[in-house]
Amino acid sequence: MKHPPLVETLIEAFTCLPGVGPRSAQRMAYTLLERGRDDGRALSAALSQAMDGVRQCKRCRNYAEEELCPICQDPRRDPGLVCIVASPADVLAVEQSGEYRGQYFVLMGQLSPLDGIGPRELGLDVLEARLNEGEIQELILATGTTVEGEATAHYVLDLAREAGVNVSRIAQGVPMGGDLEFVDGATLAHALRGRRPFST
Amino acid sequence: MKHPPLVETLIEAFTCLPGVGPRSAQRMAYTLLERGRDDGRALSAALSQAMDGVRQCKRCRNYAEEELCPICQDPRRDPGLVCIVASPADVLAVEQSGEYRGQYFVLMGQLSPLDGIGPRELGLDVLEARLNEGEIQELILATGTTVEGEATAHYVLDLAREAGVNVSRIAQGVPMGGDLEFVDGATLAHALRGRRPFST
Ligand SMILES: [Zn+2]
Ligand SMILES: [Zn+2]
Repeated sequence: MKHPPLVETLIEAFTCLPGVGPRSAQRMAYTLLERGRDDGRALSAALSQAMDGVRQCKRCRNYAEEELCPICQDPRRDPGLVCIVASPADVLAVEQSGEYRGQYFVLMGQLSPLDGIGPRELGLDVLEARLNEGEIQELILATGTTVEGEATAHYVLDLAREAGVNVSRIAQGVPMGGDLEFVDGATLAHALRGRRPFST
Repeated sequence: MKHPPLVETLIEAFTCLPGVGPRSAQRMAYTLLERGRDDGRALSAALSQAMDGVRQCKRCRNYAEEELCPICQDPRRDPGLVCIVASPADVLAVEQSGEYRGQYFVLMGQLSPLDGIGPRELGLDVLEARLNEGEIQELILATGTTVEGEATAHYVLDLAREAGVNVSRIAQGVPMGGDLEFVDGATLAHALRGRRPFST
């Protein structure tokens, strides 16, 4: 004897979410059924609309509802400056710094050959074509410092050099406002090598 | 600059789920958008169908798709024997013991006055009416051994005594202070066989 089919199907469907096993899925189903039917209906509508309505910006691969995302549509953003990031969350992080007025290219992942993620999966053929169009003056690498992030950065660096486009990388070092004792050794070593004359 | 509205709405909607904060919600939305659109559509459909199609069995309060749940519809189940449990998960646990051929009454909670959960919220007025109909010969208490479970058991015991119905309680092979749904089938079978008249 199991739950009624509609309940069983709902529990099973929740396990498609990352980090959700059978027990969490059951708890989610019970919670919505017992005291969150309107929340459940709202989630259903949000899912269906997002799955059908969200696409990738043709130019930068970020999430978009039209052919181009809001940033690519914005005439005030400098199209000569393109920041390479791994995910839409990284775009938000850079935007929140308030420091950046260029455009982006969102890889939606990092190079990871063992997982079947090669240059094509990251749209690097599209990036290569844009580099050769001549509009981009500088590429800023912000792909993170994991092994995959480094491999991705080097791949993009090669593409840019072949196209004769300047490449920079966001500075790596000690986080602002943090205690030195919580910074790992590799980061500190890097920060020491990258030291600069101090002026105020 | 934020996500497109459809993405933002989806992330926000995920936070209605228990244990899901803004960061998990974002991860869920990204995962479905990047490599699980069909899963997302299936979850949307399962949610909408369950929110509209699942109701409570008129007789036992368990989840049902018709007026009566499959157990209450089953003529082979003894209507003279009713097991009181806190949740649909507890019904599954008792069923998996393979030991029980009676019916259930599902409280969908435990008495917890501070949370506004009194006898009426648990359908205990409905249970009282059924007890007075005279069909129930024995009530088996299986409400768990937490403080709320004990309080609930004593409340039901009083109802049954007033109606002149025998009350037993599953044996204390159930670990103290634990929820019934985490108990294995063999332990539950043992506890059912070892049930005793309930007295204070
Ligand atoms: Zn774009
Ligand atoms: Zn029923």
